[in-house]
Amino acid sequence: MRLRAEAAPSHLWVPELSPGAERVELSREESHYLRHVCRAQPGDVALATDGRGALARLRVTALGERVQAEVESFEPGAPEHTRRRAWLLCGPPEGRRADWLIEKLAELGVSRWQPLECARGRWRATEAALARWRRLAVAALRQSRRRHLLELAEPRSLDEVAPEFPAEAARWVADPGGAGAVAAPSAPGWTVGAVGPAGGFDDREKARLEGLGFRPITLSDGRLRAETAAIAWASWWSRGGG
Amino acid sequence: MRLRAEAAPSHLWVPELSPGAERVELSREESHYLRHVCRAQPGDVALATDGRGALARLRVTALGERVQAEVESFEPGAPEHTRRRAWLLCGPPEGRRADWLIEKLAELGVSRWQPLECARGRWRATEAALARWRRLAVAALRQSRRRHLLELAEPRSLDEVAPEFPAEAARWVADPGGAGAVAAPSAPGWTVGAVGPAGGFDDREKARLEGLGFRPITLSDGRLRAETAAIAWASWWSRGGG
Repeated sequence: MRLRAEAAPSHLWVPELSPGAERVELSREESHYLRHVCRAQPGDVALATDGRGALARLRVTALGERVQAEVESFEPGAPEHTRRRAWLLCGPPEGRRADWLIEKLAELGVSRWQPLECARGRWRATEAALARWRRLAVAALRQSRRRHLLELAEPRSLDEVAPEFPAEAARWVADPGGAGAVAAPSAPGWTVGAVGPAGGFDDREKARLEGLGFRPITLSDGRLRAETAAIAWASWWSRGGG
Repeated sequence: MRLRAEAAPSHLWVPELSPGAERVELSREESHYLRHVCRAQPGDVALATDGRGALARLRVTALGERVQAEVESFEPGAPEHTRRRAWLLCGPPEGRRADWLIEKLAELGVSRWQPLECARGRWRATEAALARWRRLAVAALRQSRRRHLLELAEPRSLDEVAPEFPAEAARWVADPGGAGAVAAPSAPGWTVGAVGPAGGFDDREKARLEGLGFRPITLSDGRLRAETAAIAWASWWSRGGG
Protein backbone atom coordinates (compact mmCIF):
# COMPACT_ATOMS: atom_id res chain seq x y z
CA MET A 1 0.00 0.00 0.00
CA ARG A 2 1.36 3.40 -0.97
CA LEU A 3 1.40 6.27 1.52
CA ARG A 4 -0.80 8.24 -0.87
CA ALA A 5 -3.82 6.08 0.00
CA GLU A 6 -3.55 7.21 3.62
CA ALA A 7 -3.72 10.92 2.87
CA ALA A 8 -6.89 12.93 2.27
CA PRO A 9 -7.88 12.70 -1.41
CA SER A 10 -6.85 15.53 -3.71
CA HIS A 11 -9.36 18.33 -4.14
CA LEU A 12 -9.86 19.63 -7.67
CA TRP A 13 -11.73 22.39 -9.46
CA VAL A 14 -13.72 20.95 -12.37
CA PRO A 15 -16.24 23.60 -13.48
CA GLU A 16 -17.72 21.33 -16.19
CA LEU A 17 -18.98 18.75 -13.66
CA SER A 18 -22.66 17.99 -14.13
CA PRO A 19 -25.15 15.78 -12.25
CA GLY A 20 -25.61 13.17 -14.95
CA ALA A 21 -22.03 12.73 -16.18
CA GLU A 22 -20.44 9.30 -15.68
CA ARG A 23 -16.94 10.33 -16.61
CA VAL A 24 -14.97 13.52 -16.94
CA GLU A 25 -11.83 14.73 -18.69
CA LEU A 26 -9.83 17.14 -16.56
CA SER A 27 -8.42 20.41 -17.85
CA ARG A 28 -4.69 20.66 -18.52
CA GLU A 29 -4.20 22.64 -15.30
CA GLU A 30 -6.04 20.17 -13.06
CA SER A 31 -4.38 17.24 -14.82
CA HIS A 32 -0.97 18.77 -14.18
CA TYR A 33 -1.84 19.40 -10.54
CA LEU A 34 -3.10 15.85 -10.04
CA ARG A 35 -0.14 14.20 -11.75
CA HIS A 36 2.74 16.37 -10.60
CA VAL A 37 1.66 17.83 -7.28
CA CYS A 38 -0.60 15.08 -5.93
CA ARG A 39 1.31 12.32 -7.81
CA ALA A 40 -1.93 10.47 -8.52
CA GLN A 41 -1.97 7.02 -10.13
CA PRO A 42 -4.73 5.21 -12.00
CA GLY A 43 -7.22 3.86 -9.47
CA ASP A 44 -6.71 6.77 -7.05
CA VAL A 45 -9.67 8.71 -5.73
CA ALA A 46 -9.94 12.50 -5.97
CA LEU A 47 -12.65 14.92 -4.92
CA ALA A 48 -13.80 17.58 -7.34
CA THR A 49 -16.02 20.61 -7.03
CA ASP A 50 -17.58 22.70 -9.77
CA GLY A 51 -16.80 25.78 -7.66
CA ARG A 52 -20.53 26.40 -7.32
CA GLY A 53 -21.17 24.02 -4.43
CA ALA A 54 -21.31 20.56 -5.99
CA LEU A 55 -18.87 17.87 -4.87
CA ALA A 56 -18.05 14.72 -6.83
CA ARG A 57 -15.92 11.71 -6.06
CA LEU A 58 -13.72 10.77 -9.00
CA ARG A 59 -11.71 7.62 -9.71
CA VAL A 60 -8.71 8.19 -11.98
CA THR A 61 -8.83 5.85 -14.99
CA ALA A 62 -6.04 7.20 -17.20
CA LEU A 63 -3.24 9.71 -16.79
CA GLY A 64 -1.89 11.91 -19.58
CA GLU A 65 -2.03 15.58 -20.49
CA ARG A 66 -5.78 15.34 -19.91
CA VAL A 67 -6.52 12.98 -17.03
CA GLN A 68 -9.61 10.76 -17.45
CA ALA A 69 -11.77 9.85 -14.48
CA GLU A 70 -15.01 8.10 -13.61
CA VAL A 71 -17.56 9.99 -11.54
CA GLU A 72 -18.36 7.67 -8.63
CA SER A 73 -20.77 10.02 -6.87
CA PHE A 74 -22.13 13.54 -7.27
CA GLU A 75 -23.56 15.66 -4.50
CA PRO A 76 -25.20 18.95 -5.51
CA GLY A 77 -24.49 22.10 -3.51
CA ALA A 78 -26.82 23.51 -0.87
CA PRO A 79 -29.39 25.99 -2.21
CA GLU A 80 -27.85 29.46 -2.52
CA HIS A 81 -30.31 31.06 -0.12
CA THR A 82 -29.16 28.74 2.69
CA ARG A 83 -25.57 29.95 2.49
CA ARG A 84 -23.69 32.72 4.26
CA ARG A 85 -21.97 34.79 1.60
CA ALA A 86 -19.53 37.68 1.70
CA TRP A 87 -19.03 40.23 -1.05
CA LEU A 88 -15.96 42.31 -0.40
CA LEU A 89 -15.16 45.62 -2.12
CA CYS A 90 -11.50 46.65 -1.89
CA GLY A 91 -9.64 49.76 -2.87
CA PRO A 92 -6.16 49.04 -4.24
CA PRO A 93 -3.40 48.20 -1.75
CA GLU A 94 0.20 49.18 -2.47
CA GLY A 95 2.41 47.26 -4.89
CA ARG A 96 1.73 43.59 -5.59
CA ARG A 97 -0.07 43.02 -2.32
CA ALA A 98 -3.31 42.19 -4.13
CA ASP A 99 -1.94 38.75 -5.05
CA TRP A 100 -1.86 37.36 -1.59
CA LEU A 101 -4.91 39.37 -0.58
CA ILE A 102 -6.88 37.32 -3.11
CA GLU A 103 -5.31 34.06 -1.95
CA LYS A 104 -6.28 34.80 1.64
CA LEU A 105 -9.82 35.95 0.86
CA ALA A 106 -10.36 32.73 -1.11
CA GLU A 107 -9.01 30.63 1.78
CA LEU A 108 -11.30 32.42 4.21
CA GLY A 109 -14.31 31.64 2.04
CA VAL A 110 -15.28 35.06 0.69
CA SER A 111 -17.75 34.54 -2.16
CA ARG A 112 -17.19 37.56 -4.34
CA TRP A 113 -14.37 40.05 -4.61
CA GLN A 114 -14.79 43.44 -6.21
CA PRO A 115 -11.75 45.64 -6.89
CA LEU A 116 -13.05 49.14 -6.16
CA GLU A 117 -11.92 52.20 -8.11
CA CYS A 118 -11.52 55.00 -5.56
CA ALA A 119 -10.77 58.70 -5.54
CA ARG A 120 -7.43 57.95 -3.84
CA GLY A 121 -6.52 54.76 -5.68
CA ARG A 122 -7.03 53.22 -9.11
CA TRP A 123 -6.46 49.54 -9.91
CA ARG A 124 -4.00 48.45 -12.56
CA ALA A 125 -5.84 45.23 -13.30
CA THR A 126 -4.19 44.10 -16.51
CA GLU A 127 -5.34 40.94 -18.27
CA ALA A 128 -2.24 39.24 -16.88
CA ALA A 129 -3.13 40.29 -13.34
CA LEU A 130 -6.71 39.07 -13.69
CA ALA A 131 -5.50 35.72 -15.03
CA ARG A 132 -3.01 35.41 -12.15
CA TRP A 133 -5.73 36.25 -9.61
CA ARG A 134 -7.98 33.55 -11.10
CA ARG A 135 -5.18 30.99 -10.76
CA LEU A 136 -4.57 32.03 -7.15
CA ALA A 137 -8.28 31.67 -6.36
CA VAL A 138 -8.31 28.14 -7.83
CA ALA A 139 -5.17 27.17 -5.91
CA ALA A 140 -6.75 28.44 -2.69
CA LEU A 141 -9.94 26.47 -3.40
CA ARG A 142 -7.87 23.28 -3.72
CA GLN A 143 -5.78 24.10 -0.68
CA SER A 144 -8.70 24.92 1.61
CA ARG A 145 -10.94 22.17 0.13
CA ARG A 146 -13.79 24.56 -0.50
CA ARG A 147 -16.80 23.91 -2.69
CA HIS A 148 -17.16 27.47 -3.94
CA LEU A 149 -14.70 29.39 -6.05
CA LEU A 150 -14.05 33.04 -5.18
CA GLU A 151 -15.73 35.14 -7.89
CA LEU A 152 -13.49 37.89 -9.25
CA ALA A 153 -14.72 40.98 -11.03
CA GLU A 154 -13.09 43.72 -13.05
CA PRO A 155 -12.51 47.01 -11.21
CA ARG A 156 -15.58 49.24 -10.88
CA SER A 157 -16.61 52.26 -8.84
CA LEU A 158 -18.95 52.19 -5.86
CA ASP A 159 -21.64 53.93 -7.92
CA GLU A 160 -21.41 51.21 -10.56
CA VAL A 161 -21.60 48.32 -8.08
CA ALA A 162 -24.10 49.68 -5.55
CA PRO A 163 -27.28 48.92 -7.57
CA GLU A 164 -26.37 45.20 -7.42
CA PHE A 165 -26.26 44.90 -3.63
CA PRO A 166 -29.08 42.67 -2.38
CA ALA A 167 -31.55 44.87 -0.49
CA GLU A 168 -31.37 42.78 2.68
CA ALA A 169 -27.56 42.47 2.76
CA ALA A 170 -25.71 43.47 5.92
CA ARG A 171 -23.15 46.19 5.10
CA TRP A 172 -19.96 46.92 7.00
CA VAL A 173 -17.14 49.28 6.11
CA ALA A 174 -13.71 48.92 7.74
CA ASP A 175 -13.14 52.11 9.73
CA PRO A 176 -10.74 52.72 12.64
CA GLY A 177 -13.43 54.86 14.29
CA GLY A 178 -16.22 52.29 14.05
CA ALA A 179 -17.83 49.80 16.37
CA GLY A 180 -15.59 47.25 18.07
CA ALA A 181 -16.88 43.91 19.25
CA VAL A 182 -19.65 43.35 16.71
CA ALA A 183 -20.61 39.74 15.95
CA ALA A 184 -20.62 38.90 12.26
CA PRO A 185 -24.02 37.87 10.87
CA SER A 186 -24.46 34.13 11.44
CA ALA A 187 -27.67 33.67 9.43
CA PRO A 188 -27.66 32.81 5.73
CA GLY A 189 -27.50 35.71 3.31
CA TRP A 190 -25.11 38.30 1.97
CA THR A 191 -22.78 40.49 3.95
CA VAL A 192 -21.20 43.26 1.88
CA GLY A 193 -17.90 44.72 3.06
CA ALA A 194 -15.93 47.76 1.96
CA VAL A 195 -12.26 48.48 2.57
CA GLY A 196 -10.64 51.68 1.34
CA PRO A 197 -7.45 52.03 -0.70
CA ALA A 198 -4.03 52.66 0.86
CA GLY A 199 -4.91 56.37 1.17
CA GLY A 200 -8.39 55.68 2.60
CA PHE A 201 -11.85 56.64 1.33
CA ASP A 202 -12.40 60.36 0.78
CA ASP A 203 -15.28 62.29 2.34
CA ARG A 204 -17.58 61.89 -0.63
CA GLU A 205 -17.06 58.12 -0.66
CA LYS A 206 -17.58 57.92 3.09
CA ALA A 207 -20.87 59.80 2.78
CA ARG A 208 -21.96 57.58 -0.10
CA LEU A 209 -21.18 54.43 1.91
CA GLU A 210 -23.13 55.78 4.86
CA GLY A 211 -26.04 56.59 2.55
CA LEU A 212 -25.93 53.00 1.28
CA GLY A 213 -26.31 51.70 4.81
CA PHE A 214 -22.71 50.68 5.50
CA ARG A 215 -21.96 50.71 9.21
CA PRO A 216 -18.37 51.26 10.38
CA ILE A 217 -16.51 48.42 12.06
CA THR A 218 -13.12 48.62 13.75
CA LEU A 219 -10.89 45.67 12.95
CA SER A 220 -7.89 46.49 15.14
CA ASP A 221 -6.70 49.09 17.60
CA GLY A 222 -3.99 50.17 15.15
CA ARG A 223 -3.87 51.50 11.61
CA LEU A 224 -4.00 48.62 9.12
CA ARG A 225 -2.69 48.51 5.59
CA ALA A 226 -5.49 48.15 3.01
CA GLU A 227 -4.84 44.45 2.40
CA THR A 228 -4.54 43.70 6.12
CA ALA A 229 -7.87 45.41 6.77
CA ALA A 230 -9.47 43.33 4.01
CA ILE A 231 -8.14 40.09 5.48
CA ALA A 232 -9.17 41.11 8.99
CA TRP A 233 -12.66 41.87 7.66
CA ALA A 234 -12.84 38.46 5.94
CA SER A 235 -11.54 36.75 9.06
CA TRP A 236 -14.23 38.50 11.15
CA TRP A 237 -16.91 37.45 8.69
CA SER A 238 -15.55 33.93 8.25
CA ARG A 239 -15.69 33.10 11.93
CA GLY A 240 -19.19 34.52 12.32
CA GLY A 241 -20.99 31.39 11.20
CA GLY A 242 -18.97 29.14 13.51
CA MET B 1 3.32 75.92 2.82
CA ARG B 2 4.36 72.45 1.75
CA LEU B 3 1.83 69.64 1.52
CA ARG B 4 3.89 67.71 4.05
CA ALA B 5 2.66 69.91 6.88
CA GLU B 6 -0.91 68.77 6.24
CA ALA B 7 -0.20 65.07 6.58
CA ALA B 8 0.05 63.12 9.84
CA PRO B 9 3.58 63.35 11.24
CA SER B 10 5.98 60.52 10.52
CA HIS B 11 6.11 57.73 13.07
CA LEU B 12 9.57 56.43 14.00
CA TRP B 13 11.12 53.68 16.07
CA VAL B 14 13.78 55.13 18.38
CA PRO B 15 14.60 52.51 21.03
CA GLU B 16 17.10 54.78 22.79
CA LEU B 17 14.46 57.38 23.73
CA SER B 18 14.50 58.17 27.44
CA PRO B 19 12.35 60.37 29.67
CA GLY B 20 14.99 63.01 30.38
CA ALA B 21 16.60 63.41 26.98
CA GLU B 22 16.31 66.82 25.32
CA ARG B 23 17.67 65.75 21.98
CA VAL B 24 18.20 62.56 20.08
CA GLU B 25 20.29 61.31 17.19
CA LEU B 26 18.40 58.89 14.97
CA SER B 27 19.83 55.60 13.72
CA ARG B 28 20.94 55.33 10.11
CA GLU B 29 17.78 53.36 9.25
CA GLU B 30 15.35 55.84 10.81
CA SER B 31 17.32 58.76 9.34
CA HIS B 32 17.07 57.20 5.90
CA TYR B 33 13.34 56.59 6.34
CA LEU B 34 12.73 60.14 7.53
CA ARG B 35 14.76 61.77 4.76
CA HIS B 36 13.94 59.58 1.78
CA VAL B 37 10.49 58.13 2.48
CA CYS B 38 8.93 60.92 4.55
CA ARG B 39 11.01 63.64 2.84
CA ALA B 40 11.34 65.51 6.12
CA GLN B 41 12.94 68.94 6.33
CA PRO B 42 14.51 70.78 9.28
CA GLY B 43 11.69 72.15 11.43
CA ASP B 44 9.34 69.24 10.68
CA VAL B 45 7.68 67.33 13.48
CA ALA B 46 7.89 63.55 13.82
CA LEU B 47 6.52 61.17 16.41
CA ALA B 48 8.80 58.51 17.85
CA THR B 49 8.22 55.50 20.04
CA ASP B 50 10.76 53.42 21.92
CA GLY B 51 8.74 50.34 20.92
CA ARG B 52 7.99 49.74 24.60
CA GLY B 53 5.03 52.11 24.85
CA ALA B 54 6.57 55.59 25.17
CA LEU B 55 5.75 58.25 22.59
CA ALA B 56 7.78 61.39 21.98
CA ARG B 57 7.27 64.39 19.76
CA LEU B 58 10.44 65.31 17.90
CA ARG B 59 11.41 68.44 15.97
CA VAL B 60 14.00 67.84 13.26
CA THR B 61 16.97 70.17 13.70
CA ALA B 62 19.50 68.81 11.20
CA LEU B 63 19.41 66.27 8.38
CA GLY B 64 22.33 64.05 7.38
CA GLU B 65 23.20 60.40 7.65
CA ARG B 66 22.20 60.65 11.31
CA VAL B 67 19.26 63.03 11.70
CA GLN B 68 19.32 65.27 14.80
CA ALA B 69 16.11 66.18 16.59
CA GLU B 70 14.89 67.98 19.70
CA VAL B 71 12.52 66.12 21.99
CA GLU B 72 9.55 68.45 22.46
CA SER B 73 7.53 66.12 24.65
CA PHE B 74 7.76 62.62 26.09
CA GLU B 75 4.83 60.49 27.21
CA PRO B 76 5.64 57.22 28.97
CA GLY B 77 3.74 54.07 28.04
CA ALA B 78 0.85 52.70 30.08
CA PRO B 79 1.90 50.21 32.80
CA GLU B 80 2.37 46.74 31.35
CA HIS B 81 -0.31 45.16 33.52
CA THR B 82 -2.96 47.47 32.03
CA ARG B 83 -2.35 46.23 28.49
CA ARG B 84 -3.90 43.45 26.44
CA ARG B 85 -1.07 41.37 25.05
CA ALA B 86 -0.90 38.47 22.62
CA TRP B 87 1.88 35.91 22.46
CA LEU B 88 1.59 33.81 19.35
CA LEU B 89 3.39 30.50 18.78
CA CYS B 90 3.57 29.46 15.13
CA GLY B 91 4.74 26.32 13.40
CA PRO B 92 6.49 27.03 10.09
CA PRO B 93 4.34 27.85 7.07
CA GLU B 94 5.47 26.85 3.58
CA GLY B 95 8.14 28.73 1.64
CA ARG B 96 8.78 32.42 2.36
CA ARG B 97 5.31 33.01 3.80
CA ALA B 98 6.73 33.86 7.20
CA ASP B 99 7.83 37.27 5.93
CA TRP B 100 4.39 38.70 5.45
CA LEU B 101 3.05 36.70 8.38
CA ILE B 102 5.34 38.74 10.61
CA GLU B 103 4.39 41.99 8.91
CA LYS B 104 0.70 41.28 9.46
CA LEU B 105 1.07 40.14 13.08
CA ALA B 106 2.97 43.35 13.82
CA GLU B 107 0.28 45.46 12.14
CA LEU B 108 -2.42 43.69 14.14
CA GLY B 109 -0.62 44.48 17.39
CA VAL B 110 0.62 41.06 18.50
CA SER B 111 3.17 41.60 21.29
CA ARG B 112 5.40 38.56 21.00
CA TRP B 113 5.97 36.06 18.24
CA GLN B 114 7.50 32.66 18.86
CA PRO B 115 8.51 30.44 15.94
CA LEU B 116 7.64 26.96 17.16
CA GLU B 117 9.67 23.87 16.28
CA CYS B 118 7.18 21.09 15.60
CA ALA B 119 7.22 17.38 14.86
CA ARG B 120 5.91 18.13 11.36
CA GLY B 121 7.85 21.28 10.66
CA ARG B 122 11.22 22.83 11.53
CA TRP B 123 12.08 26.50 11.05
CA ARG B 124 14.99 27.56 8.90
CA ALA B 125 15.54 30.79 10.79
CA THR B 126 18.93 31.91 9.52
CA GLU B 127 20.56 35.06 10.86
CA ALA B 128 19.54 36.75 7.60
CA ALA B 129 15.92 35.71 8.08
CA LEU B 130 15.86 36.95 11.67
CA ALA B 131 17.35 40.28 10.60
CA ARG B 132 14.77 40.60 7.80
CA TRP B 133 11.94 39.79 10.21
CA ARG B 134 13.16 42.49 12.60
CA ARG B 135 13.17 45.03 9.76
CA LEU B 136 9.64 43.99 8.75
CA ALA B 137 8.44 44.39 12.34
CA VAL B 138 9.91 47.91 12.53
CA ALA B 139 8.36 48.87 9.19
CA ALA B 140 4.97 47.62 10.39
CA LEU B 141 5.33 49.60 13.63
CA ARG B 142 5.88 52.78 11.59
CA GLN B 143 3.09 51.96 9.18
CA SER B 144 0.49 51.15 11.81
CA ARG B 145 1.69 53.91 14.19
CA ARG B 146 1.98 51.53 17.10
CA ARG B 147 3.82 52.21 20.34
CA HIS B 148 5.01 48.64 20.86
CA LEU B 149 7.40 46.71 18.67
CA LEU B 150 6.59 43.07 17.95
CA GLU B 151 9.08 40.97 19.95
CA LEU B 152 10.68 38.21 17.89
CA ALA B 153 12.30 35.11 19.34
CA GLU B 154 14.49 32.35 17.96
CA PRO B 155 12.72 29.06 17.19
CA ARG B 156 12.03 26.85 20.21
CA SER B 157 9.87 23.85 21.02
CA LEU B 158 6.64 23.94 22.99
CA ASP B 159 8.36 22.21 25.93
CA GLU B 160 11.02 24.92 25.99
CA VAL B 161 8.54 27.81 25.88
CA ALA B 162 5.74 26.50 28.08
CA PRO B 163 7.39 27.25 31.45
CA GLU B 164 7.36 30.96 30.51
CA PHE B 165 3.61 31.28 29.96
CA PRO B 166 2.04 33.53 32.62
CA ALA B 167 -0.12 31.34 34.86
CA GLU B 168 -3.24 33.45 34.32
CA ALA B 169 -2.88 33.73 30.52
CA ALA B 170 -5.82 32.73 28.32
CA ARG B 171 -4.71 30.00 25.89
CA TRP B 172 -6.24 29.26 22.50
CA VAL B 173 -5.04 26.88 19.81
CA ALA B 174 -6.26 27.23 16.22
CA ASP B 175 -8.18 24.04 15.43
CA PRO B 176 -10.81 23.43 12.71
CA GLY B 177 -12.77 21.30 15.19
CA GLY B 178 -12.82 23.88 17.98
CA ALA B 179 -15.31 26.40 19.31
CA GLY B 180 -16.73 28.92 16.88
CA ALA B 181 -18.04 32.27 18.01
CA VAL B 182 -15.85 32.86 21.06
CA ALA B 183 -15.19 36.46 22.07
CA ALA B 184 -11.51 37.30 22.50
CA PRO B 185 -10.51 38.33 26.03
CA SER B 186 -11.13 42.06 26.39
CA ALA B 187 -9.50 42.53 29.80
CA PRO B 188 -5.81 43.39 30.21
CA GLY B 189 -3.41 40.48 30.35
CA TRP B 190 -1.82 37.89 28.16
CA THR B 191 -3.52 35.67 25.61
CA VAL B 192 -1.28 32.90 24.30
CA GLY B 193 -2.08 31.44 20.90
CA ALA B 194 -0.77 28.38 19.09
CA VAL B 195 -0.96 27.64 15.38
CA GLY B 196 0.43 24.42 13.91
CA PRO B 197 2.82 24.06 10.98
CA ALA B 198 1.66 23.40 7.40
CA GLY B 199 1.23 19.72 8.27
CA GLY B 200 -0.58 20.41 11.55
CA PHE B 201 0.28 19.48 15.15
CA ASP B 202 0.74 15.77 15.77
CA ASP B 203 -1.15 13.86 18.46
CA ARG B 204 1.55 14.25 21.09
CA GLU B 205 1.65 18.03 20.56
CA LYS B 206 -2.14 18.25 20.65
CA ALA B 207 -2.20 16.36 23.95
CA ARG B 208 0.54 18.58 25.36
CA LEU B 209 -1.35 21.74 24.34
CA GLU B 210 -4.52 20.42 25.93
CA GLY B 211 -2.57 19.60 29.09
CA LEU B 212 -1.27 23.18 29.11
CA GLY B 213 -4.82 24.50 29.09
CA PHE B 214 -5.08 25.51 25.41
CA ARG B 215 -8.68 25.47 24.24
CA PRO B 216 -9.44 24.90 20.54
CA ILE B 217 -10.87 27.76 18.48
CA THR B 218 -12.15 27.54 14.93
CA LEU B 219 -11.09 30.48 12.79
CA SER B 220 -12.93 29.66 9.56
CA ASP B 221 -15.26 27.05 8.09
CA GLY B 222 -12.52 25.96 5.69
CA ARG B 223 -9.01 24.61 5.98
CA LEU B 224 -6.53 27.46 6.39
CA ARG B 225 -2.86 27.57 5.50
CA ALA B 226 -0.63 27.93 8.56
CA GLU B 227 0.07 31.62 7.98
CA THR B 228 -3.59 32.39 7.26
CA ALA B 229 -4.63 30.70 10.50
CA ALA B 230 -2.05 32.78 12.40
CA ILE B 231 -3.35 36.02 10.90
CA ALA B 232 -6.96 35.00 11.51
CA TRP B 233 -6.03 34.26 15.14
CA ALA B 234 -4.34 37.67 15.49
CA SER B 235 -7.30 39.38 13.85
CA TRP B 236 -9.68 37.66 16.29
CA TRP B 237 -7.54 38.71 19.23
CA SER B 238 -6.93 42.23 17.91
CA ARG B 239 -10.61 43.04 17.61
CA GLY B 240 -11.42 41.65 21.04
CA GLY B 241 -10.52 44.75 22.97
CA GLY B 242 -12.57 47.03 20.69
